[in-house]
Amino acid sequence: MRTASDDLVAALDIGGTKIAGALVDGRGRLLVRARRPTPAREDGATVMGAVAAVLGELLRTAHWSRVRAVGIGSAGPVDASTGTVSPVNVPGWRDFPLVAEVAGLVGGRPVVLVGDGVAMTAAEHWQGAARGRANALCMVVSTGVGGGLVLGGRLHTGPTGNAGHIGHISVDFDGDACPCGARGCVERIASGPNIARRALDAGWRPGPDGDPSAAAVAAAAEAGDPVALASFARAAQALAAGIAATATLVEIEVAVVGGGVAGAGEVLFAPLRERLRDYATLSFASSVEVLPARLGSDAGLVGAAAAAAQQLGLWAVAVGR
Amino acid sequence: MRTASDDLVAALDIGGTKIAGALVDGRGRLLVRARRPTPAREDGATVMGAVAAVLGELLRTAHWSRVRAVGIGSAGPVDASTGTVSPVNVPGWRDFPLVAEVAGLVGGRPVVLVGDGVAMTAAEHWQGAARGRANALCMVVSTGVGGGLVLGGRLHTGPTGNAGHIGHISVDFDGDACPCGARGCVERIASGPNIARRALDAGWRPGPDGDPSAAAVAAAAEAGDPVALASFARAAQALAAGIAATATLVEIEVAVVGGGVAGAGEVLFAPLRERLRDYATLSFASSVEVLPARLGSDAGLVGAAAAAAQQLGLWAVAVGR
Repeated sequence: MRTASDDLVAALDIGGTKIAGALVDGRGRLLVRARRPTPAREDGATVMGAVAAVLGELLRTAHWSRVRAVGIGSAGPVDASTGTVSPVNVPGWRDFPLVAEVAGLVGGRPVVLVGDGVAMTAAEHWQGAARGRANALCMVVSTGVGGGLVLGGRLHTGPTGNAGHIGHISVDFDGDACPCGARGCVERIASGPNIARRALDAGWRPGPDGDPSAAAVAAAAEAGDPVALASFARAAQALAAGIAATATLVEIEVAVVGGGVAGAGEVLFAPLRERLRDYATLSFASSVEVLPARLGSDAGLVGAAAAAAQQLGLWAVAVGR
Repeated sequence: MRTASDDLVAALDIGGTKIAGALVDGRGRLLVRARRPTPAREDGATVMGAVAAVLGELLRTAHWSRVRAVGIGSAGPVDASTGTVSPVNVPGWRDFPLVAEVAGLVGGRPVVLVGDGVAMTAAEHWQGAARGRANALCMVVSTGVGGGLVLGGRLHTGPTGNAGHIGHISVDFDGDACPCGARGCVERIASGPNIARRALDAGWRPGPDGDPSAAAVAAAAEAGDPVALASFARAAQALAAGIAATATLVEIEVAVVGGGVAGAGEVLFAPLRERLRDYATLSFASSVEVLPARLGSDAGLVGAAAAAAQQLGLWAVAVGR
């Protein structure tokens, strides 16, 4: 007999550099994968062509008949209320009707759209470091800083699917201008490129390999370079203030931090835990924990599937409980 | 025949200066009122005695038989998960088992505890400026800065009943030390005493009546005093950054601002709306509106009743929809 766990969800993870797809089962396993580079500088129809090519590969497999829904996690901003996306790094897509376009390719199956930070959060809540936590913030600290929220045991997407955008809350309201238009955003201080820029500005120099990335700054910090350590400490301070703000506003028990910058390990996590005590001061917020993310590069796909499953009531036992 | 709207909720609003009580009906009307000063410097049992006296007045009325539940809004921090309160301004109550004590006086009726910011939010959502809004932040800007959240059409209390504590998120993470232990909290910049302090520090002087309050600074600002205007502008900037952070983190469509400082009217609201455009920059956050609160000093009582009714499923048609 067929059980609900036979149901599959087709997942799409759409970013500025790649479009990934997979068929995901009720245990979070990826049965079939497909992938194309994002033709990010081309027109909207060409980008959609790459999405259709990824979906086409999934559609042609024997598993497709078991697919009940499509989940999409996309670089933001997205608007789940209108089914449109306007990814910053894909200029050909502005208010692009992605949900309608995908729905036209999948024979009437329901299509759920969320931002990529929300998708990552769904994955960490289902299978990763936020599993079993009723209230959590999950973050990606990388080229940008994104995130998502679990509140009351469920993914909190917000009406447009963008909730949890912790990278663009201001923790330094007189601070440096952020490309978003505000000042002192968490991303402006804690993203990988900003960690590297701050280290370079303060006199740190790359090693013989010439690598000027945040990963190289992390390696220098690990070796005791005080300028590199200071740049990570500043990023940790901004992340701590942002996590504390979230704990104070919505009550979370855990903050899960992933992404390339989290790969710095204790160089980031040690000052982050320490500074969090300075900002998360109220009784109900002070016990918030920080944990590294557990899922790797498949988090976007697993999470897009999980978000769709939760919203549509598939795999009810496994997701979000 | 009795209808659900015959049901009453007994409401308690517990603050550092007064303990108010009322019987509230399904339309938010206060049928009976009682009130005592808070013996805030006495021991815990004496404070509880004042609560019991207020409840006693309500218990002795003919309406008491229709009371289905008790709702308590208390100065924080509270802990709804344990039923205890530790109000900053009532040192005799630390982890005081308020819910159990009240339950012992009301014959087994269910008792619901929330923080005072959450109660005010429940009231504005039920009867005031946030009515009909599915996602809202409500704030009290007064001696302190408190607040609460409505998410997805329902009051978001958080597990301990403290969610929405916008006064203690940091918008200036290198800024002035806040009594909570953090730095640059919204309250440290935008509360009435801080508006007055900043104006005095910058050379503003009270008029012939000697009143050095934020209300006097507001009157001076209204008359064009540049120092007074600058102090309100700074408060507005902090509130704008806090509201923008909330919109960016959880997606809200409206921020309702009440409390004594909101009584300054456009002296506060004009710069607040202007600065909000500087910080709420992402597409899904940029349309957040700011509105003055509509309910006055009864908001705490109406909201304590509304929070209990929502949690217990009373008056389901009227509350939170």
